Amino acid sequence: MGGLKRIAILGSTGSIGQQTLEVARAFSDKFKIIALGAGTNSQLLAGQIKEFKPQIVSFQGPGASLKEMLRPGGPAAPKIVTLEEMASYPDVDLVVVATSGKAGLAPTLAAIRARKELALANKEVLVMAGAIVTAEARKHGVKIRPVDSEHSAIWQCLKGEQRGSVARLILTASGGPFLRYPAKRLKTITPEQALAHPTWKMGRKVTIDSATLMNKGMEVIEAHWLFGLPYNRIGVVIHRESIVHSMVQFVDGSIKAQLSRPDMRLPIQYALGYPDRGFNPDLPVMDWDKALALNFEPPDLPRFPCLRLAREAGEEGGTYPAVLCAADEVAVDRFLSHGICFADIAPLVEDALDHHRGVKRPSLGEILEADAWARQYATRWRSHRT
Amino acid sequence: MGGLKRIAILGSTGSIGQQTLEVARAFSDKFKIIALGAGTNSQLLAGQIKEFKPQIVSFQGPGASLKEMLRPGGPAAPKIVTLEEMASYPDVDLVVVATSGKAGLAPTLAAIRARKELALANKEVLVMAGAIVTAEARKHGVKIRPVDSEHSAIWQCLKGEQRGSVARLILTASGGPFLRYPAKRLKTITPEQALAHPTWKMGRKVTIDSATLMNKGMEVIEAHWLFGLPYNRIGVVIHRESIVHSMVQFVDGSIKAQLSRPDMRLPIQYALGYPDRGFNPDLPVMDWDKALALNFEPPDLPRFPCLRLAREAGEEGGTYPAVLCAADEVAVDRFLSHGICFADIAPLVEDALDHHRGVKRPSLGEILEADAWARQYATRWRSHRT
Repeated sequence: MGGLKRIAILGSTGSIGQQTLEVARAFSDKFKIIALGAGTNSQLLAGQIKEFKPQIVSFQGPGASLKEMLRPGGPAAPKIVTLEEMASYPDVDLVVVATSGKAGLAPTLAAIRARKELALANKEVLVMAGAIVTAEARKHGVKIRPVDSEHSAIWQCLKGEQRGSVARLILTASGGPFLRYPAKRLKTITPEQALAHPTWKMGRKVTIDSATLMNKGMEVIEAHWLFGLPYNRIGVVIHRESIVHSMVQFVDGSIKAQLSRPDMRLPIQYALGYPDRGFNPDLPVMDWDKALALNFEPPDLPRFPCLRLAREAGEEGGTYPAVLCAADEVAVDRFLSHGICFADIAPLVEDALDHHRGVKRPSLGEILEADAWARQYATRWRSHRT
Repeated sequence: MGGLKRIAILGSTGSIGQQTLEVARAFSDKFKIIALGAGTNSQLLAGQIKEFKPQIVSFQGPGASLKEMLRPGGPAAPKIVTLEEMASYPDVDLVVVATSGKAGLAPTLAAIRARKELALANKEVLVMAGAIVTAEARKHGVKIRPVDSEHSAIWQCLKGEQRGSVARLILTASGGPFLRYPAKRLKTITPEQALAHPTWKMGRKVTIDSATLMNKGMEVIEAHWLFGLPYNRIGVVIHRESIVHSMVQFVDGSIKAQLSRPDMRLPIQYALGYPDRGFNPDLPVMDWDKALALNFEPPDLPRFPCLRLAREAGEEGGTYPAVLCAADEVAVDRFLSHGICFADIAPLVEDALDHHRGVKRPSLGEILEADAWARQYATRWRSHRT
């Protein structure tokens, strides 16, 4: 307690990174941003640096361009470091990993080994390398704080409850924009249609993954690693309104659910301030003076095979979840650039999983090798149709 | 831990009492019933005594009749005591107060002063004498465990949370059978129609109180005393399906809700075993493989004035909530015996509150005096109609 919590944001120019900065602005009495790491958006990063005056920055684009942008700004320019150096930097108390894809893997491990508080928004870290990451976290006494709204909901519902009293986790899924589409029309969906998510403001990749339910499948794998439950005790239920963010069912049949109007700043704020909850006037509040209907239904697995694929990859374990991630990333890219159609995403991923020769207890190197193999496979893949 | 928890049930032949015995049957490895107290149903009590072989019993009816019924049963007849002796009996670990009306008041105070674990199902205890009961509980370090499904839900949602992070309690109400009735038809409702509650299996008094929303109003007062929040931070929302049993809203806008299929054995079991949750094969489990809709709407206060009356009596404090309870009890009796009509219940209670001369910080004696006054007033009350 006492004093400001010093925060590093890895991926500060992405959607979660920017919303983390909004939370930091709202709680300038609690949090101080001292490290900012970004991908390639040097202009946005330069603005963030001017506002938050971090001690250190990391930038994946050409270093020269960032330096040039910073010069006119004025005084003490921040030190430029790698994401791993940032994640283990002595002055940092809490690391927010808001990178995407496998970029978060090494920095997450660095933060764990440096025993930092860790707020994890980069889901591929646990999907690809859950066994390694959670083993390291146990070893170093680090509790991984989820930033996903679903896992934050579960984490909140588990607060104060005994581990042995948990029967089941129930992840909610909005179902994406194509829940009611006739199966035939799934083939003709355009990237523009798929990018129009009904309830959440998110990045392009996550939005497509929401439409295929691959996102939910990956969250099942994440939940498995975060909360240590077997896959047959992690369920998914479709909930269009995105108000109930997930639930925990206990052995006595009691269920706890966490609800709010959808806004990622709430789980971000919870992860930063845990176990404290802070009043934030910017956050939306539920209005119980209006009638409200919350609907739940089981997912239609045959229509959305990605959920099954992710679950199978998770249960298979080893390098399969890494292949799932990498193949899906390439598939979504190819869909967004009009290379394959929406209905090709699942068959591409399934073919990659089928053709992969899995490694049982892979090292990080073997996981990255599987990732590289899957990317190559997915890039070359040709649709069975036409 | 270790060893059986020895339990006294005050009101063992009522609805909650009988369901508490069902829970005790399901967990005979955890709970041992050593004391049974009943009102007037000697036959049912005799059966319970034969099955559970308590050390002590209490009976409000003619003592002789119980003794005669027990004789043929056989061996060591239990000792007959008063409810207050039972509540403070040295061998008892946990007291379930499942009496009704003001009968629970003295035994509850006795249990608190004897520092027993206390599961409270008798809502009038807190409504009538919340200030006295909670002050005694604080003084003796006793945490009152609620048995009502609504307060149990709030208690579960507060588990592990900091006191200062609570913004609001939201009690759910089924709305009773007349939620959509045209106001005109409320006058012609028969006791038989009112006793048909849509979702919960309950006693007659509570069922009528659910139909008038007086039950919910009393629960607002109970929640005020149990959780220490002012009345303007305790809301009520109509939820027809009785699946969400209540909610807690936190300062960050996050809401936790507790859900289950409606079954009183769950909150009873939770109160007995707290903080442990036990697997009970008898309890129903939510089926997420079926579509489910949960609906919420604000209560229509002008149509159901009892909710307003209870809130006003609670805010006024002193002897007013005792008058509310007593007047309502007589009003419901008179309705059930066709003495007044359904739409007369609220005006009767309102007139009693209006004519009462309140005492600010009443003693228990003054509360009982107000109770007696209100009963007399309510018995003599004549409808404004006709």
